[in-house]
Amino acid sequence: MTDTSLYGTPRSGPTADGEELLRRGTALVDPPLRAAVDRLHPSMAAVCRYHLGWDADASPTPVRHVAKRVRAALALLSVRSVEAPERFAAVAGTAVELVHQLSLLHDDIMDGDTERRGRPAAWARFGTGAAVLAGDALVVQAVATVFRAQAPGARAAMEELIGTVERMVEGQAEDLALERCALREVSASRYAHMARGKTGALFGCAAALGAVLADAPPPVVRALRGAGSDLGVAFQILDDVLGLWGDGALTGKPVGTDLVRGKKTLPLVLAATADSAAGRGVAELLDSVPLPRDRVPEVMRRLAAAGGRERAEEAAAHQVASALAALDAAELPGAVRQEWSSLVDCLSRRRR
Amino acid sequence: MTDTSLYGTPRSGPTADGEELLRRGTALVDPPLRAAVDRLHPSMAAVCRYHLGWDADASPTPVRHVAKRVRAALALLSVRSVEAPERFAAVAGTAVELVHQLSLLHDDIMDGDTERRGRPAAWARFGTGAAVLAGDALVVQAVATVFRAQAPGARAAMEELIGTVERMVEGQAEDLALERCALREVSASRYAHMARGKTGALFGCAAALGAVLADAPPPVVRALRGAGSDLGVAFQILDDVLGLWGDGALTGKPVGTDLVRGKKTLPLVLAATADSAAGRGVAELLDSVPLPRDRVPEVMRRLAAAGGRERAEEAAAHQVASALAALDAAELPGAVRQEWSSLVDCLSRRRR
Repeated sequence: MTDTSLYGTPRSGPTADGEELLRRGTALVDPPLRAAVDRLHPSMAAVCRYHLGWDADASPTPVRHVAKRVRAALALLSVRSVEAPERFAAVAGTAVELVHQLSLLHDDIMDGDTERRGRPAAWARFGTGAAVLAGDALVVQAVATVFRAQAPGARAAMEELIGTVERMVEGQAEDLALERCALREVSASRYAHMARGKTGALFGCAAALGAVLADAPPPVVRALRGAGSDLGVAFQILDDVLGLWGDGALTGKPVGTDLVRGKKTLPLVLAATADSAAGRGVAELLDSVPLPRDRVPEVMRRLAAAGGRERAEEAAAHQVASALAALDAAELPGAVRQEWSSLVDCLSRRRR
Repeated sequence: MTDTSLYGTPRSGPTADGEELLRRGTALVDPPLRAAVDRLHPSMAAVCRYHLGWDADASPTPVRHVAKRVRAALALLSVRSVEAPERFAAVAGTAVELVHQLSLLHDDIMDGDTERRGRPAAWARFGTGAAVLAGDALVVQAVATVFRAQAPGARAAMEELIGTVERMVEGQAEDLALERCALREVSASRYAHMARGKTGALFGCAAALGAVLADAPPPVVRALRGAGSDLGVAFQILDDVLGLWGDGALTGKPVGTDLVRGKKTLPLVLAATADSAAGRGVAELLDSVPLPRDRVPEVMRRLAAAGGRERAEEAAAHQVASALAALDAAELPGAVRQEWSSLVDCLSRRRR
């Protein structure tokens, strides 16, 4: 299991390839993404450039974050998996990135997150109205990007995109619904359903869309979509873990924010459903929403005693193993299969 | 000019036809619209049903409002104008209505409007997050509706829809930008540009989309789109006028709301750009944003003295005349041309 664990020891294999995939994916997607933003109304383009960290005041290195580049790398692997031209990866990666940015813009409003990556969120900087509208502008560009693609599978790709955004909305709606539930009412499977929509759907789309554009055989597309979706769920779990035990300076999000707000993150869900005094204690403490800041240390102690982190990490590792198994079953060319493993390694090492 | 004026004496002609078009358009569009909402996640469907007045608590008669049914009637006239099957009107009207409802959901958030049609706006009732997300869900359904249409012009119809939403976003962005300007900086042509995007684009789409789906000749499509767009601008101007001089009990929006908030409505723009003491007075008073409620009567007096209402009504009449001229040039079948005139009459008589 070691070499498939999202949190295991880094493989001794070709780990540089993962970085190269992230770099190359971003290089493919960045120009058409910028072109799409340039086509917007100037005031909307300004909101999007700020949000994307493309403005003059942004820190010069945000693009190095693995989390920011993973979808583009998945789009690249999607076409490499079926030996299709890279231009399909550019189209797929651009559409996926536009949808991703739309979801971040709107999610920050929904969650009331005033900060993103260490500076004011777009809505906090430009107003809720401008951020809502900028998101609407981006989704139209995503649709236009796929719809106008010159590709044999363009029609199926539009269906892929439509279904993806539908599942994302459902996942986000589930997430909103979960916030209103008591922690003990939330099962691990309900969490998984939410995460598969909220994060898995777009990862699955990123991993499949290039192959769909290339009109690849349906079983391969299904395997890629499934693997991407599993990786997305693992990614969401890692986000949950980083939100509790990560370095706020790296993640750009103060540790404990999710906790105070009553987000049903997986470590909490698994601790609360564990049959232990510590687990029941976590559930009881979390009955207060918002949780008073001074109760955070006690929650963290009980969470540790209930094994919340380990259980969540196991669940993530399980998702990663499932993703790799799907890729194995798809019988991809050996070199590409290796690249998938290297990308998974990169994801496993991210700390923000 | 009388029979083309949006505010003129009602024509003695077949005015019943306008009502019939509104009724028949709604009957065509309502079932697929409900089906689209039924496909959403239950929590999103609940937001949309409330917003659309389909919930148990809604007043039983809101569907009688002309404003709520005009887009469906335009979609019907679109296909009648080119003698195409009504099923294209159902597709077009559904997509247009989904986009319209998205824009209302998001606009209420942007404008901070806590009420719509006499009860809490969706965001005020369900939270900003749920209303943002419900809008996102609707735009995807609109795209899916047109994309999956079985019609010779389905591809061109997708382009029509994409371009329409792009123009709406631009118009809305302009509207947000205008709110931050001093009244005297806003010219009538800048207002017209904003209104053509914000309201004209979707009216134009409603009037064209059915014909586009039917693969009608481009010159006819252009005439229908242009006429719809002109009628949309006239409709927006009438909205502005009703917001200042209408009956708040009928419009569901307290009179003076736009004024207090600093909305650059056309009567204000035209008064402020008139070379008169009253006009300059209006501009000066409106320098205070938000305008204190107790200054509203003075603004209204000066606005009347500067002829703000008459000038706006003239501008609306000009748009209507332009729409009818475009329809004349398209050489539609005589009976359909009559129907267009009856619908315009219905629009001109609306008081909410």
